[in-house]
This record gives sequence, C-alpha cells and structure tokens, in this order.
Amino acid sequence: MIYFITGNRHKYVEAKKIIDDIEMKHIPYPEIQADSLEEVAKFGIDYLKNKIEAKFFLEDSGLFIDALKGFPGVYSAYVFKTIGNDGILKLMEGKKERKAYFKAVIAYYDGSVHIFQGICYGEIAMEKRGEGFGYDPIFVPEGSKKTFGEMSKEEKNKYSHRGKALMAFKKFLNSQ
Amino acid sequence: MIYFITGNRHKYVEAKKIIDDIEMKHIPYPEIQADSLEEVAKFGIDYLKNKIEAKFFLEDSGLFIDALKGFPGVYSAYVFKTIGNDGILKLMEGKKERKAYFKAVIAYYDGSVHIFQGICYGEIAMEKRGEGFGYDPIFVPEGSKKTFGEMSKEEKNKYSHRGKALMAFKKFLNSQ
Repeated sequence: MIYFITGNRHKYVEAKKIIDDIEMKHIPYPEIQADSLEEVAKFGIDYLKNKIEAKFFLEDSGLFIDALKGFPGVYSAYVFKTIGNDGILKLMEGKKERKAYFKAVIAYYDGSVHIFQGICYGEIAMEKRGEGFGYDPIFVPEGSKKTFGEMSKEEKNKYSHRGKALMAFKKFLNSQ
Repeated sequence: MIYFITGNRHKYVEAKKIIDDIEMKHIPYPEIQADSLEEVAKFGIDYLKNKIEAKFFLEDSGLFIDALKGFPGVYSAYVFKTIGNDGILKLMEGKKERKAYFKAVIAYYDGSVHIFQGICYGEIAMEKRGEGFGYDPIFVPEGSKKTFGEMSKEEKNKYSHRGKALMAFKKFLNSQ
C-alpha cells in the first residue's frame, strides 16, 4: 500500500482508477517557490520522509505558456485565484505564438526519490469556451479543436497530463 | 552582531545604513508558496534557526495590487521575471482602481521570532516612466507624482517600505 499525500479528493479518485493499491492521506507540506515542479516535489518529499512510515507519493502540476516565459508555471494555482483566465487571455492579447503545456510531476518515496512526469501539449484559446476546472476553458490540447472545458471527463482523460504521469508511475511499480 | 541572511548586496547596504551592527551572510533557504510574506519569512526562520549560532534576520517584500486581488504579491520576483512590467500594465488596462502597495517584512530571530513590516501605499502608473529596479517604473507612491523609477535614490528612500521595516526593527533593538 502506498499513500497519496493530497488534500484533493478529485486527484485521489483519478489516481485510484489507475493505481489500485493507494490510500489518500492529507498531511500539509510546504510547497517552495522554485522554477520547476520537480524542485517543489522534491522539497515536499524531503519534508515528509521522516514523518511517514509507509511508501508515499505526491503530485504537483501547472500550466506553462511559451510566450509568457513559462508563466504561470509553478504558481498556476495562485495565478488562477488572482488574475484568473481573464488575466491570462489579456496577457495573450495580440500574441500569435500561443503554445502552452500542462505538466504534472509525481514524486514517489520508497527510501529513495523517483520522479515521473506527464505533459499535455497544446495552445491557449482566443477566448474562454466551456466550463470545467481552472484553466480548462482556455486550453486546447494538440489533436483537438475543443478546449478541455468543452470535453467530457472521459474525453479529457485521454489527454490528461496527470494521467500520463500516473501511467509512468504505474509502469515503474509493475516493473519492481 | 546580527546576521542579515541575504544574497542581495544592495539590500545589505541599505540595511547597514540604518542598523550598523549587522553583517551579511548568504545562506540559501526555501521560500514557500504562501498567501503572505509573513508566512514565507516565518518558514525561513524555522528552516535556518538550528543552522545559525548568532542572532539573524531575513527580509522579503512584494507588490500587492488591489484590482488584481493582491497579485503579484508574494510571487513578485517570479512575475517580474516572466511577464514583467508590460504584463502588469496589460492586466491593468482599463482599470480605474489602480491602488497598490509595496510591503516589506523583516523576520528576526533571537531565540524567538519577531516580525516587523513596512508599507508604501501608492498606485500603478498608466505607463512605464523612468528606470530603476523591478516594478519601480510603474509604481507611484502616495504624495508624489513621480514613479520610483523617476526618483533619485535619496528621494525614493523617503518612501521605502524596506526602510520603514528596518526603522521598526531598529526601534525594537534600541528598546532592548
């Protein structure tokens, strides 16, 4: 059994579908200000590793926009809470280069640290379309014309950066 | 003697002018993602307190814009590096409410934690004016028509949030 350290039940449910042998455990841990999700996740592991007996993992994700030098990146949650999708669209006004990607990083601790990632490439839409969580209404994944906000859960899951990171993690577990 | 934990020589020189009995010491410490500068500073103290023998302090500051729900706030340095002043001005396009403030927080550790703050109220200019560091060209302090970027160092120091926090800290030290 492996603990998934998160306070977000939706993330847990998504992960449980892919890796059965997990349990949700909510222990708050500091997320540092850093340039990469990997650094944030590794610091989280360091903070938690002497506090938890069992194997555990945590996950962090963000939206990285090329034309904004990777903004909002590691701070995606905070930026969404403050300037939101309207702010992002305003910053992208007049920009032809609209490439962006969602990235998820999983850090797993079993005595040493293992990092897995999943990336979903795509671009920033010209306007909000559909509903959904966070940046979903403004992100169009490669291979689709719909935003995440316009997709069903099943359709969106095909592209999911978090799903890809979880699959990489699962593959590692199965190989052990 | 008190250590000022910073990698920024300019900040050290500014502080040394106000509080003579300090020395610069560069020890990197994690800055967490949090809603307030105080939380970031307190976490820094916690991280450092068993690593440093002498008394020490650290400082963190940010620009908080009312119309953007406090953005860029605690993440001011990162936001400057990515979307910069042009990004902030774009987000403020069409906004009549342009109030903002710079805030500096000093956390001092002498066996327990003491927090001091300095605030400089003002507003976001309609366009960049002058030179200077960071957000200086777009911030007009209350009581002036110039941006920080258009002021001499001496003139700017009169308004300085960091200077105010340092003065509060000095007052505390003198009272001991």
